[in-house]
Amino acid sequence: MRAVEIIRKKRDGGELSRDEIAYLVREYATGRIPDYQLSAFLMAVFFQSMTTPEVAALTEEMRVSGEVIDLAFIPGCKVDKHSTGGVGDKTSLVIAPAVAAAGVTVPMMSGRGLGHTGGTLDKLESIPGFQVRFSSDKFRQLLSTAKLAFIGQTENIVPADRKLYALRDVTATVESRPLITASIMSKKLAEGIDALVLDVKTGSGAFMKAQPQAEALAEAMVSLGKACGKKVVALVTDMNQPLGDLAGNSLEVIECLDVLKGGGPADLVALCTELSAHCLVLGEAAGALEEGRKIYRKAIESGKALEKFREVIKLQGGDPRVVDDYRALPSAKHSMDVASPAGGFVGAMETEKIGLALCVLGAGRETVDSVIDPAVGVRFHKKIGDAVAAGEALCTVHYNDEERCHETRKRLLESYIIVPEPAPRPLLVKKTIS
Amino acid sequence: MRAVEIIRKKRDGGELSRDEIAYLVREYATGRIPDYQLSAFLMAVFFQSMTTPEVAALTEEMRVSGEVIDLAFIPGCKVDKHSTGGVGDKTSLVIAPAVAAAGVTVPMMSGRGLGHTGGTLDKLESIPGFQVRFSSDKFRQLLSTAKLAFIGQTENIVPADRKLYALRDVTATVESRPLITASIMSKKLAEGIDALVLDVKTGSGAFMKAQPQAEALAEAMVSLGKACGKKVVALVTDMNQPLGDLAGNSLEVIECLDVLKGGGPADLVALCTELSAHCLVLGEAAGALEEGRKIYRKAIESGKALEKFREVIKLQGGDPRVVDDYRALPSAKHSMDVASPAGGFVGAMETEKIGLALCVLGAGRETVDSVIDPAVGVRFHKKIGDAVAAGEALCTVHYNDEERCHETRKRLLESYIIVPEPAPRPLLVKKTIS
Repeated sequence: MRAVEIIRKKRDGGELSRDEIAYLVREYATGRIPDYQLSAFLMAVFFQSMTTPEVAALTEEMRVSGEVIDLAFIPGCKVDKHSTGGVGDKTSLVIAPAVAAAGVTVPMMSGRGLGHTGGTLDKLESIPGFQVRFSSDKFRQLLSTAKLAFIGQTENIVPADRKLYALRDVTATVESRPLITASIMSKKLAEGIDALVLDVKTGSGAFMKAQPQAEALAEAMVSLGKACGKKVVALVTDMNQPLGDLAGNSLEVIECLDVLKGGGPADLVALCTELSAHCLVLGEAAGALEEGRKIYRKAIESGKALEKFREVIKLQGGDPRVVDDYRALPSAKHSMDVASPAGGFVGAMETEKIGLALCVLGAGRETVDSVIDPAVGVRFHKKIGDAVAAGEALCTVHYNDEERCHETRKRLLESYIIVPEPAPRPLLVKKTIS
Repeated sequence: MRAVEIIRKKRDGGELSRDEIAYLVREYATGRIPDYQLSAFLMAVFFQSMTTPEVAALTEEMRVSGEVIDLAFIPGCKVDKHSTGGVGDKTSLVIAPAVAAAGVTVPMMSGRGLGHTGGTLDKLESIPGFQVRFSSDKFRQLLSTAKLAFIGQTENIVPADRKLYALRDVTATVESRPLITASIMSKKLAEGIDALVLDVKTGSGAFMKAQPQAEALAEAMVSLGKACGKKVVALVTDMNQPLGDLAGNSLEVIECLDVLKGGGPADLVALCTELSAHCLVLGEAAGALEEGRKIYRKAIESGKALEKFREVIKLQGGDPRVVDDYRALPSAKHSMDVASPAGGFVGAMETEKIGLALCVLGAGRETVDSVIDPAVGVRFHKKIGDAVAAGEALCTVHYNDEERCHETRKRLLESYIIVPEPAPRPLLVKKTIS
C-alpha cells in the first residue's frame, strides 16, 4: 500500500477501504508517513468529503491510536455532554453535577479554550487549586466515588487526533465535516462512555455559522455514534449571541453557581435544563424528556446539584469556599462600561468578534501558548432584542490591564449592531436530532 | 503574510495576488514554508485551479528562483521544441539538427525519462561518451559554435520547480494544468529562448489521455508564453501508439539516424517535418509553414541535418562513428518475438502499459533512482490498423535479462488489442494552437 495512491484515490472521489484508512492513520501516527503527504490527503478530504463508513473507519483508527479507558466496571450507562464551542458556553459546569446528582455517571473529558471559544478546563481552573490532569486510574477512581469527574484529555488518549489536529490547524483543513466528526467522536469513544449528548452550536459565534451546516454536522455525528453502538442525541442550539450574561473564566463559574442555586439568566437555565434532560433520558434515569426536565429541576431545587459540584471541587483539589463566597475566586481590579452610541434595539451581536475581544482582554487564548487571566471578562447587560438608550451601558469590561481594556471595548462596541426596530430574540434550541 | 491564510484563500476559490504567490514560492524555496503547507496548497490548486494571471505569477517566480540564461549575445531568434512526453517520442534528435542546419539556433534543454515516458537525455547518452552536463557558460559556447546544444537542466536552473515537482510527485498533485504549465514554462523561459514549439501529446500513452484536456493544456501554455513575450505554437499530436517503430534508448538513436539519412517510419518522419517547419517559421528561417517543410526536407536530403548531428556528437564528447556504424552503439544480446494470439487487426495499443513494460525491461525508469540499460528495447512490427495473422510477430523484444524479458512480453501482449475489423489509423496532428 502506498500513501500517494491513497491520496490519489480520495482526490479522484473514490471511497477508501477500512484497510487504507488504517494504513494512513497508523503509519502517520508512527511517523512513517510524512506530514506533507497527510496534509495533501486532508485537503483532498476537504474537497471530496468522506462516506459514513470512511468516517467510521477513521474514527475507530484514531480511537485505538492510544489508551482506551474502560469504564465497564461502573454499573449503568455512562453519559457525557459535548459542545462544539462558543462564547459564554458554560453548561458543563451545571449539567454534569445536576445529572450526576440524579444518579447517572458523567465521565467528562473536556478541552481548553482556543481562538474565540472558551474551554471548560480553563473555567474550572479559575477555582483556586482545582486540578484537571489525572491518570486514567485516578479518573476511574473519581468516577466511582462521585459519579462525576472533570479531566483534560491525557497525552495517551487519541494521540493520532492530536497530531492530525495540529497539522490541520496550519494547513487550512480544519473546516471539514468528516474530519471534525472523527476528531470529536474518536475522543468521546475513547473515554469509555455509553451515551453522548451533543450541543452543536450555530450562529455568529459558532464554527458552523449557517444552520444547515450545523445540522449536517449533528446528523453526521449522531449516525457515526450509532454506527459505533452508542446512544447519541444532538441539539442544534443558538450561538448568535453569548450564552448567559457573563463571559470570562471566574465570572462563568459564578454564573454557573448561580444556576446551581436556582438563579441565573433564563437562556442558560433553559439550555442546561434541555441538555440535562437528554442526558438523564440516555442515562436511563428518566423515561422521557419531560420527566428528565423534572428530575433536573428537582436536583437544583433540592440543592443536590450544588452539593455534587462542591464535592467534586473538593475531590479535585479545589477550594470549596468558592461555592458560598465568590470572593474566593480571582476577580479583576477594574471595570468599565461600554456605552451604546445610539438608542434603539440590539439587532445582532458579532459573537466571534466578541470571543476574539475576550482573547485580547486575556480571558481566552489566541494561540495554544497564550497565558490566560482567570479574573477578567465581560458582563453583557444587553442582548439581542433588548431596548437600549443612547449612552446606556451595553456591557461592562472587567479588566486588569488598561491597554487591553481599551482594545477590548473598541471591539465590543463594533460587535453590537444597534437597529431602530425591535429585533426577534433567537430561538435557543433549533433542532433535536436523534 | 501567513501561509495558512494563502492556502485558505485558494481553498475557498479566491484569486491570489502576485505578492502572495511570490511569498509562497520564495519562502518555500528557502525552506521557511514547510513541505506540509505547500502540499496542502498544491492540492487546493488541484481542485480550484488558477487564473492566467496567477499562473503567470507562479511561472515568473519559479523562473527567477535560480539562474536565468542570457542568450541575447547570439543574433536571431532562438527556438526550442518541447514535448509533454510519450513512448518512442524521439523527434528532438531529428528536429534540433535539421533546424540548426537551416540556420536557426536551437538551445535544447531536455529531461530524463520517468515512469512510462522516455527522455531525450537518456537516448543521447546511449551514444558512447556523449555528455549532457555542462555549465551555462559552456552551453552558450556550444550554441555559438554549432547553433545547437543538448543539455540537461542544471542544478541552478529553476530550483523552485525541482523542489515543487518532487513534492507533487509524492502528494498526487502532478495532474494539475496550472502546475504543469508553470513547471514547463518556467524552465523554458529560464533557458533564454525567444520562441517555443510545443508538442502536446494526447492518447493512451500521454499524460493527458483525453484530447480536450490536452487542448486546454496547449492553450494555457500558448497564452502564458505570449503573456511572457515569447512566440509559442502548440501542436496537439497523437500518442495512442508508440511514435515510430522503435522504443528503447540506442534503438531510438538508430531510428533517428535513419530519418536524418532520409529513411525511417512514416509517422516519425511526418511529425518531425511538421514540428521542424513550425520551428523554422518561428525562427524566421521560413515565411510560412509550407516553406518550412521544404527547408526541412532540403536539410535532410542534402545531408546537412545528419552532418549537424555528427558535429554535435563530436562537440559533446560522443563517438561520431555511431552515425555510420550502428554497431558502435550498445546492443542487446538477445531478442524474442511477441506473437499475436489471434488473427485480425490491431484495434488499439495501451501505450502507457507499453511504456511501463519498457521500464520493466530496463529501458526506462520506474523511479528517479532506477538504472537504465541503453541497449534494450522493443521493435513494433504492427501498429494500429495493421492486419495480423495468428502467431505472427506483433513486436520483438531486445533484451539482456531473461526474467525481465518474460515480464515485458507478458505486458506487451496485454497491451495489444486485436479486433476482427480493420481499425482506423489515428490522425497524427490533431490540432495546431497559436
